[in-house]
Amino acid sequence: MLPLLIAQEAKDLGWQPFIVAIADGRQRSWEGWDHISLPWSRTGNVFDHLRRRNVSKIVFSGTISVRPDYRSMLPSWPTLKMLPELFRMTQGGDDSLLRAVAQVFERRGVEVLSVQTIMPNLLLPLGNLTNVAVVANHEAAIDRAEIAAVRLGLLDIGQAVVASQDRIIALEGIEGTRELLLRVADLRSRKRIGRGEACVLFKAFKPQQDMRFDLPSIGVETIAQADAAGIAGIAMTAKRSLVIEPQKVADAAQAAGLFVLGVRDMEDGRL
Amino acid sequence: MLPLLIAQEAKDLGWQPFIVAIADGRQRSWEGWDHISLPWSRTGNVFDHLRRRNVSKIVFSGTISVRPDYRSMLPSWPTLKMLPELFRMTQGGDDSLLRAVAQVFERRGVEVLSVQTIMPNLLLPLGNLTNVAVVANHEAAIDRAEIAAVRLGLLDIGQAVVASQDRIIALEGIEGTRELLLRVADLRSRKRIGRGEACVLFKAFKPQQDMRFDLPSIGVETIAQADAAGIAGIAMTAKRSLVIEPQKVADAAQAAGLFVLGVRDMEDGRL
Repeated sequence: MLPLLIAQEAKDLGWQPFIVAIADGRQRSWEGWDHISLPWSRTGNVFDHLRRRNVSKIVFSGTISVRPDYRSMLPSWPTLKMLPELFRMTQGGDDSLLRAVAQVFERRGVEVLSVQTIMPNLLLPLGNLTNVAVVANHEAAIDRAEIAAVRLGLLDIGQAVVASQDRIIALEGIEGTRELLLRVADLRSRKRIGRGEACVLFKAFKPQQDMRFDLPSIGVETIAQADAAGIAGIAMTAKRSLVIEPQKVADAAQAAGLFVLGVRDMEDGRL
Repeated sequence: MLPLLIAQEAKDLGWQPFIVAIADGRQRSWEGWDHISLPWSRTGNVFDHLRRRNVSKIVFSGTISVRPDYRSMLPSWPTLKMLPELFRMTQGGDDSLLRAVAQVFERRGVEVLSVQTIMPNLLLPLGNLTNVAVVANHEAAIDRAEIAAVRLGLLDIGQAVVASQDRIIALEGIEGTRELLLRVADLRSRKRIGRGEACVLFKAFKPQQDMRFDLPSIGVETIAQADAAGIAGIAMTAKRSLVIEPQKVADAAQAAGLFVLGVRDMEDGRL
């Protein structure tokens, strides 16, 4: 789990981590860690908590998959004061939302760090993490998926695309990669994907994306989901994507017969 | 059901319709009509049948959602002769596949007609088919969805996109509009879409698309599916989209409180 890995690393570096759980993060247990769990109506209170602890640096983990409906809640006073700012922020894709959230922190003197500043070893390098061969039809599928994924990214829509060498199979909207792969598994079980039609998952860095948040990422559970969907391998933008627990991911992928490939950033000419 | 409406119209025009059922079309009953149902292994036989009946014009209805796996079947002799041609055809999106299929017929002297040549009244006109108001946030959602849908179309990926004024919700891959709307209904029931977040469905004509096949289309069942997904309205490219049974669709949409809007084709500047 990325936030806990980050907290552990920060602690090992001699820092005093403080976890702020919002949205999906509130469903997890943070026992044993200094933390606070904030419903949307009290998100404005976060700055008081940070000030009290003298927090000067913050790392974002994950994205905000639900747009809070501030109209239908009773906001706390600090949240109420921020409402105009909050309304403006929720208009746009994940990229523009996170960028706006980062500005809110920066304006209040808190520095926004990237995950990879603390854990540079999570950045996917160029090349194959496994010894599973990438053959010609995989390469054609990767190219096809990459173009679509980068296009989606430019529109700040989604990061992930599944494609075969012949066609695009599925595109990620707000549902996330796990549900995208469930859909592909279902299409395959209903024979909507040909038996010999090798598919790859591509997760792309959005060209205009801020390196400090929501990089394309995979973990061991992504490998299991991709395997269940009959995916031949996973490709991501090298040096701009995260592999959480890289050794475990490489081992799991290799055991399942999936490649994990870091590919060079696309030149504009190919778009 | 579009193929039967086409057949009925052709009959009314004094022609002698002959229905060739392939792929999904084979699951329906064509009783009472001169027809043939062809498995992929025998698709090459279609020309014999057309020749025997002196068929000179053909109308395509629907698309080919599964890429046949010619490698794993025992093809008939006429299919076998076409294999190299067939292999080439199955590489690409729906648009390129249908274009290739059309060429196969044209090369053999059969003219490929559009649905709207026979039934011009199915073309969606510019403007609102209903008296359900399109308000400012709907317009913003339509604009957002349209840009994404046309971009998808340019890449020959899909036609349909669901968006709110704030963000893109879901994109159509090979699963089709029905399953796209089921996904949106599910996201809404899990509160991944805000209660006040009005969403629209946009189905776009692909700029490079051949007007003779697979135009964006909706029917009464689309209205029911959109209603179940909590969609505020449907927009499509005017004069380049089909509304099957337009009066029934308008009545159903109005009863459900959904608008059905034909919008002007996008100028390139907005892409």
